[in-house]
Amino acid sequence: MKRTILLLLLFTCGFLSAQDQDSILVRRLFDEALTSNVAYENLRWLCKNTKGRIAGTPEAASAVEFTRQVMLDMDLDSVYLQELKVKRWVRGKIESARIISSTLGSEDLSITGLGLSVGTSDIGIAGNVIEVQNFEELEQLGEERIKGKIVFFNRPMDPTLLNTFKAYSGAVNQRGRGAIEAAKYGALAAIIRSVTTAIDDHPHTGVMGYEEGIPKIPAVCVSTMGADLLSTWLEKDPDLDLHLISNCSNHPDVTSHNVIGEIRGSTYPDEIITVGGHLDAWDNSEGAHDDGAGCIQSIETLRLYKELGIRPKRTVRAVMFMDEEIAQRGGKKYAELAKINGEKHYVALESDRGGLLPRGFGIGASGERLEKMLALEKYFAPYGITEFRGGGGGVDIGPLREFGTVLISLVPDMQRYFDYHHSPNDTFKQVNIRELQLGSASIASLIYLIDKNDL
Amino acid sequence: MKRTILLLLLFTCGFLSAQDQDSILVRRLFDEALTSNVAYENLRWLCKNTKGRIAGTPEAASAVEFTRQVMLDMDLDSVYLQELKVKRWVRGKIESARIISSTLGSEDLSITGLGLSVGTSDIGIAGNVIEVQNFEELEQLGEERIKGKIVFFNRPMDPTLLNTFKAYSGAVNQRGRGAIEAAKYGALAAIIRSVTTAIDDHPHTGVMGYEEGIPKIPAVCVSTMGADLLSTWLEKDPDLDLHLISNCSNHPDVTSHNVIGEIRGSTYPDEIITVGGHLDAWDNSEGAHDDGAGCIQSIETLRLYKELGIRPKRTVRAVMFMDEEIAQRGGKKYAELAKINGEKHYVALESDRGGLLPRGFGIGASGERLEKMLALEKYFAPYGITEFRGGGGGVDIGPLREFGTVLISLVPDMQRYFDYHHSPNDTFKQVNIRELQLGSASIASLIYLIDKNDL
Repeated sequence: MKRTILLLLLFTCGFLSAQDQDSILVRRLFDEALTSNVAYENLRWLCKNTKGRIAGTPEAASAVEFTRQVMLDMDLDSVYLQELKVKRWVRGKIESARIISSTLGSEDLSITGLGLSVGTSDIGIAGNVIEVQNFEELEQLGEERIKGKIVFFNRPMDPTLLNTFKAYSGAVNQRGRGAIEAAKYGALAAIIRSVTTAIDDHPHTGVMGYEEGIPKIPAVCVSTMGADLLSTWLEKDPDLDLHLISNCSNHPDVTSHNVIGEIRGSTYPDEIITVGGHLDAWDNSEGAHDDGAGCIQSIETLRLYKELGIRPKRTVRAVMFMDEEIAQRGGKKYAELAKINGEKHYVALESDRGGLLPRGFGIGASGERLEKMLALEKYFAPYGITEFRGGGGGVDIGPLREFGTVLISLVPDMQRYFDYHHSPNDTFKQVNIRELQLGSASIASLIYLIDKNDL
Repeated sequence: MKRTILLLLLFTCGFLSAQDQDSILVRRLFDEALTSNVAYENLRWLCKNTKGRIAGTPEAASAVEFTRQVMLDMDLDSVYLQELKVKRWVRGKIESARIISSTLGSEDLSITGLGLSVGTSDIGIAGNVIEVQNFEELEQLGEERIKGKIVFFNRPMDPTLLNTFKAYSGAVNQRGRGAIEAAKYGALAAIIRSVTTAIDDHPHTGVMGYEEGIPKIPAVCVSTMGADLLSTWLEKDPDLDLHLISNCSNHPDVTSHNVIGEIRGSTYPDEIITVGGHLDAWDNSEGAHDDGAGCIQSIETLRLYKELGIRPKRTVRAVMFMDEEIAQRGGKKYAELAKINGEKHYVALESDRGGLLPRGFGIGASGERLEKMLALEKYFAPYGITEFRGGGGGVDIGPLREFGTVLISLVPDMQRYFDYHHSPNDTFKQVNIRELQLGSASIASLIYLIDKNDL
């Protein structure tokens, strides 16, 4: 209390430099975030009541309405929706895989269909399995060895990489293009090792693709434990069969929405700062880290400004993007409307790496502007946030790049993220309240400093 | 693979500076730690099979034998036990607390006895409750207001402190001395808000004390949710009663052990480097973060050296200290025997802040030696470990200070630690394999660099 009075006195007497004042404001943002459970409870509601909110589902519609109402109750300058069309892919009622070996017996594997995959029939597909690590190996094997078989892509994420997103990039092409590459050589189906650092028995799903002119074959992912088991069995019995059912299906587009709330700028109201996450989440999860957290942190940024009476110079928008996981239609629609409406987008920040401990920011600026933004690190060091790097962005804000907008990513610690990613393990209880709060405070502080100092 | 061959060539040709070679060795330690599940599986065994291993229990004896056997199987130079006497405190079969209010009704609270507390009788204690925040408030109220009542200490940890250990220190005197201070004014018992940042319904226990000449009254802790509820009810009905049962008991000392494994030094075998954690854990938990992780990381340090063929210049000892939680007898015994045996203790490192993401080290050296050790940070920056600070130690290695030994603490991220601390939430599943591995690799690397470069 005494400290607060002293600071107020110092403020009033104008003793403090602009930099000191900025430090004090950042401290107030962190204090407010760290003593409030509003964001955490909003995330709880979202996770527990709109679980499985893949774009186009009733759950996604509920998430749209929930976040809209949360922002309507916040006395913002405006809250509105942007309508868009999304693909509608529906997981089948039956997803199963069983190894059948004449020498070893039989064993069930935990699998799940990949987003946008075609389904098998209800009685499924059965065939020999051929294990490969990459597309080059597939090419060497050729049609003769692959035709009529189920291709098993089993390259793990490299555990020695500290940057787990880099390790993810090094493995995820199996999921994205595995079915295409396998189908080129006449495969019946593709089964892909879950792209995660964890050894667990949940399949970690994700979207896959097809290519014009190449047959569409079903693609599923198998848990990492299941992949290890299948690989071990294949060593002992290369002739084993896999019986696979995944009767998912694709349907015509349906309507969905981005949700937007904004505080209008005091000085440059037509310059926009976007702070966002994506509202859709995989249907097998609560979507807590991916990306309920990013949405709730974006809303929390506006709540912190309202609570502390901060009126930014520029218009700050919290945006819940729809459909990041399947076809990224929300981000595209947002940029398309920005163009039509002639909006000026100053800066955009995305939080889509989990509600985990914040470590820094990736900043997609260059030259002097980048230098100035990197120098903001000094305000964050007291909070253990010391990794400011060049290069930033995000799937949803990516389309704003064409306007010359500076794109920024919140970078939380990466070691745990892929334990949760796209799996039933991505639940509310895996989010730590303090880590979530620190993330919100970091975003609110960075945007405050950039806007206030016209960086 | 190609990279390894290139590095080997460079090694052979002597192209690399000592510093480059050290960087390469650190990389190998991290690679080995990150690709092995040995430490994780050892921790799983310890958590699942010796849960509740408070010093003096059969579970603690099992933990002693397990860690001894793990090290016996590692082909170390020696593995042995140090015998010591520990207090034997036994939790009662009944622990309950019920609020009884003539206006509000009744409600159960989640409580548990504090270590070393005397018990209530089997029918318990009932009385009015008086809530205080600190000892000063207690003094102001005085005997008139306190006599015959149950004192409720409800000061929370300060959530705005980023250093949660500092926040813990700011609240934990209620647990340690609450019963003493309350008894001075004639209180019947003390009930203490769990010392944790989490709002949960587990009581977080811990040890408490008594003072000669002041009556020993029972002391229990209540979950933070229970504390909030009790406080709210007290506002509405200051006359409510609390009925408390905690029939724990104190017994004569029993025998237990420290467990030690060592690799003898090649050059200075009589100089000792200790790497340790404590093997005992609260009886209401699996003791995963506190401190199974620290023990297993210490063993893993020796395993990494054996695996990579590193023979340190000095003798490196992994020490599982017994009885950190109750009376710190293991650490005292270790130093006592070191004195009797005329041992030279060069450096001692303790890991007792959880198997969480490592962020840095606290180094209790001074002058030029501190500067040199702090400069090692450059080897750790590639792994995101950038917080090397002066000042270090730990409860178990603390008694070595009198030998002038440099005391070092592994400092993992602190935001989650008190969610687990001394509670049923401290389970194996709360440990992330990569965070545990990174901690082991950090310890092994730091000790390697200090020893190799004679720092």
